[in-house]
Order: sequence, then C-alpha cells, then structure tokens
Amino acid sequence: MRAAAAHYGIPAPQWLDLSTGINPQGYPVGPVPAGAWQRLPEDEDGLEAAARAYYGAESLLPVAGSQAAIQALPRLRGKRARVGVLEPSYNEHARAWRAAGHEVVELTEDELAGAAATLDVLVLVNPNNPTAVYLDPETLLDWHRMLAARGGWLVVDEAFMDTTPEQSLAGYTPREGLFVLRSLGKFFGLAGARVGFVLAPDGWLRRIAELLGPWSVPGPARWVAQQALEDRAWQTQTRRRLQEAGRRLETLLRDAGLPPAGGTPLFQWCRTERAQVIQDALARQGILVRRFDRPASLRFGLPGSEAEWQRLETGLQQA
Amino acid sequence: MRAAAAHYGIPAPQWLDLSTGINPQGYPVGPVPAGAWQRLPEDEDGLEAAARAYYGAESLLPVAGSQAAIQALPRLRGKRARVGVLEPSYNEHARAWRAAGHEVVELTEDELAGAAATLDVLVLVNPNNPTAVYLDPETLLDWHRMLAARGGWLVVDEAFMDTTPEQSLAGYTPREGLFVLRSLGKFFGLAGARVGFVLAPDGWLRRIAELLGPWSVPGPARWVAQQALEDRAWQTQTRRRLQEAGRRLETLLRDAGLPPAGGTPLFQWCRTERAQVIQDALARQGILVRRFDRPASLRFGLPGSEAEWQRLETGLQQA
Repeated sequence: MRAAAAHYGIPAPQWLDLSTGINPQGYPVGPVPAGAWQRLPEDEDGLEAAARAYYGAESLLPVAGSQAAIQALPRLRGKRARVGVLEPSYNEHARAWRAAGHEVVELTEDELAGAAATLDVLVLVNPNNPTAVYLDPETLLDWHRMLAARGGWLVVDEAFMDTTPEQSLAGYTPREGLFVLRSLGKFFGLAGARVGFVLAPDGWLRRIAELLGPWSVPGPARWVAQQALEDRAWQTQTRRRLQEAGRRLETLLRDAGLPPAGGTPLFQWCRTERAQVIQDALARQGILVRRFDRPASLRFGLPGSEAEWQRLETGLQQA
Repeated sequence: MRAAAAHYGIPAPQWLDLSTGINPQGYPVGPVPAGAWQRLPEDEDGLEAAARAYYGAESLLPVAGSQAAIQALPRLRGKRARVGVLEPSYNEHARAWRAAGHEVVELTEDELAGAAATLDVLVLVNPNNPTAVYLDPETLLDWHRMLAARGGWLVVDEAFMDTTPEQSLAGYTPREGLFVLRSLGKFFGLAGARVGFVLAPDGWLRRIAELLGPWSVPGPARWVAQQALEDRAWQTQTRRRLQEAGRRLETLLRDAGLPPAGGTPLFQWCRTERAQVIQDALARQGILVRRFDRPASLRFGLPGSEAEWQRLETGLQQA
C-alpha cells in the first residue's frame, strides 16, 4: 500500500484497498483488559478451548498467524524433501520450503492427482488463493493416505475456509502426516492481530511449539481471538453477509466485462490479458487490486461501505 | 502462576504476583485504532522511528519480544560455537544456544574477563537477572573488541536497562559482532504485548528478519509500543518512581532480615539458605516470589498498590 501511494501520488488514507482478501467489516474489537498487555501470556487461558470448539478439532496450537506455521513446518522436515505446490497459489509456502533447503515442484491443477504418489510433501491452499479452486475433503483425504503411507505430509492452508466449514479438513484431524492451517486474518478480519492455528497430532504440535518458543502469541491477540471464536451470532451473520457480498462482487465484475474465473465470498479472481492495464487504471483512481502474471489475472477483495461499492463500480467503468 | 494457584489452592486473582520483574504500574494503554487489528502490519509505520529516538540507535529491528531474538541468534551462527553465559542468569539464552546445537560454557562473574579470549560468543544480561550485577560499558566494549577481532559476537540482553539508559550499549551500536537486545516487557510493563528490539548492523538485521518472516509483530502491539516509546513525560516520571520503589523494596527486605545481595529498580535479589522455606511460607499467604537454587536465593518484584506493599511486609513478618 505504501509503495502504491508513493507511485501514484495518492495519500494512503484515500485509497480503496481491495488488494487483500480480508473481511472489510471484521470482528469488532472491544477494550482489551489491561492485564492482557501487562502479563506474560499463558497457554490454556481459554483460547485453545474456544478454538477446539470452533474448529471441531481436539489437537491444535495457536501461532502468530499462519505465517508462523508456514515458516516452521519446512524446518521440522529433516531430510531434503520433494515438495509439491499448486501454481499459482499463495507464494509464502513455496518460499518457506525453498528457504529451508527443500526441492519445490510447481504443479498445475491437473497434475495434482498424479503427484501425491511421488512427493514427500504436498502443500495446498483450500480454497486456493487466488484461483478460488475448492478441493473436496474426500480427494484430499485420498492424497493424504497416499502421502502418509510413505511418511509424507499433506499441508492444507485453510485461510479462506471459514465461510464453508463443511469443506474443512479440521474435523479429520489429528492424523499423522496431516497439517491443517487456520487463521483469524481473513473471515474475522483480524489480519493485524496475527493469530492462527495448526491442527495436527500432538507430537508435531510440541515440536512446532519448541521451535517457536514461549509466548509467541501476544496476550491482547489471544484475548481478541478468544472473543471472536466464541461469538457464534457474529459468525453466523457474517457468513451470510459475506456470501451475499461475494455474489454482489461477482455480478459487479461480470457487468463490468470481467467475469470471474473463480471466487470465494472474500475475493473474486478474473483472468484477463488486460490485467496490467486495468490495475493501473484503477490505481490512478486510488483503487488498489492485486495482479498476478502467471496467468495474467486480477484479484478483487470486498468493498466495505456502500460508498466503496459505488467507487469500485465507477472505477471499473472508467478503466 | 496457574501451577502455584493449583498447588496452594488459592485462586489466581487472589495472588500477589512478585515472581516477575515487570513494572506493576505499566504504560496505560488507550483504545487501539481498529485498523491496527484489521490490516497487516507494515514496517516503518512510525514504530522504528520512535525506537531509534528512544534508544539512540540507528540500526534496529522490532521483534516479537526479545525472546524472538534469543531464539533467532543461535540459528544464524553457522558453525558450532563455544558460547559463554553467566551463571546464574536468565536461562532462555543458554537453552536457545544449546537447542541450536552450540556448546554452552557456564561462567562465574570472576571468569568473565578471561573468557572473552577463548569464546566465539559471549551472552550477557545487563543488569543481570537475577543477581542485578551491572557491567560497565567500557568493560563490555573491551570484551566486544576481543571477540569481534576473531569473528566473535557479544550479545547483551538489556531487558532491565531502561531505568539506567546511561549504562546501555545502545549508543555504541551498530558494530560488527555486537547485538543488543531491548524489550518493552519490564520497564514499560508491556510483557503481554511481546515487543522487543535487536540493535545490530543492518546485514544481520536483514538475516534475522528473513528468519522471523513478515508481520512478526502484530499491528496493535506496534501501535502501543510506539505510543510508549514516544511518551517522554511518562518515561521520566516512571524512571523516578521505579527508583524510589526499588529503594523502598530494598529497605523493606533488609528490615525483614533479608538484605538484598543485589537489586535494580524493578527487582531485588536475596541470597538465603532459607529460600525454599520463605518462598513456601509466602505462597501459603498467596504471595508468589521466584526462587533460584544455585545459589539458594529469592527474587522479589515490585508490589504495585500501597495495599500490596503492606501485604508483602506482613507476609514477610509471618514467613
């Protein structure tokens, strides 16, 4: 955002930032109790219990955003592994596995099914970011079985799964060789809080905790996350609201001549050879969207207020 | 705390917790702007500038508490190193260096001066926790020169340095082979926020940042830390208040027959063969203090309210 602001000469507060998939009407955070700032955070303060109930998973570990888990897992896989990632996808996974010295194999969607037999680790984002491809649990569990039979891992990053909990693998954990990553950044709109969870067998959670060290999630972030995970009324309402907003964004883009190739309630993905031209034209109007080059495409997050919806509609007409 | 509460059958909220060296009247945190929770944190949002001014150090990196740096540094020291630590001291340092496969040599205070010539890395806490030994900057800079001349490191954890900034090595950074760790946990009383800084040459900061990954300090924690580091009036008042409180605690302990062997404004350290008996007697009254076995000793943090001071005084009379 700061780079865009400088490049286009538009001050940061004036931008409509649609470059992320973060819920623009995130969980309303109340006043944090003073003790959460002052005291060292403690495990099992209620956060883990709230997360077990929300995810329907017994064995989990809070981490400082799923990024913390993304960086930890490659370091826990001892021998140089052959690691498959879908391309395009959220690129922090491939970066972390490469940085830890592993071999990363980029796979197309069609190659995924055959790859599980030859890989040590398969890392997927489900639904995928930015293509919005959903892989169903049965398929993933098949691949997990093939991988686990040879000591392999299936890592599934479910950052955008909260609007479709029935598609999650959370309820199938813990299983040896299965790592599910969840985050409060997108659906709950708490990206700044840096809270995520690893769902995996206890032995692996202990190793991750050891690597990350004590007090890795701050007290105020733990407090806010617990509130959000326990607020079923807000979750139900938000799930419905986001589904409506996602449909509205899909329609808006279609009407603007950019029919999405895929979408989740939190973002839409449009393939277009004009990606760079459209991104630039929107940016001149202070609207920031995310561009991908392989394939040429744009990802649109949700506007928040009605004024923002209008601004995007007008912006696309002039792009 | 939770363990003590269970063992002594006293509910956690009823304890007077003097087991840490955290300022009991920490920085008063106002309402966090909603954007800090919602958006991904960005570097150079004002926090780094505030820290540069506060520490008088040009080259620094915010980290999720000094613990993050304690765990990162041993991983960046490639070859197996011979690492000297003072004993007793804050034991997370030795633990992290051992966990990363290095050889840890425990040194007495008298052995420190001779050790710099034979070590790859010397790790010190200044003032030391729990002994409250202060090492003067000239001595440390001498040792740093000896270490750096052979590619060695001096790591100085200044977690308790904020009341005596004139003794800090911050102003001598950056120097190759010198790593100074600071934290907002103790003086600012923001242990739950998990914000610290590494003061070191830029090249090393980049390597630490790469290891820790993006967004390692949450947005709300960054915001609070910036407020605290910029609030000179609060800092001046707090420095004075803590010095008075430290003297009061020293006197109180002396009058109770426990003359401190060392102290900082934030804690007092008492050597006594009766450490275990006194700790237990205090705990039965719901007062938690930290015990060390080598040598047998107790560390007392500061009471906060006048009622807490009275409770400690009475508690010691009955111990």
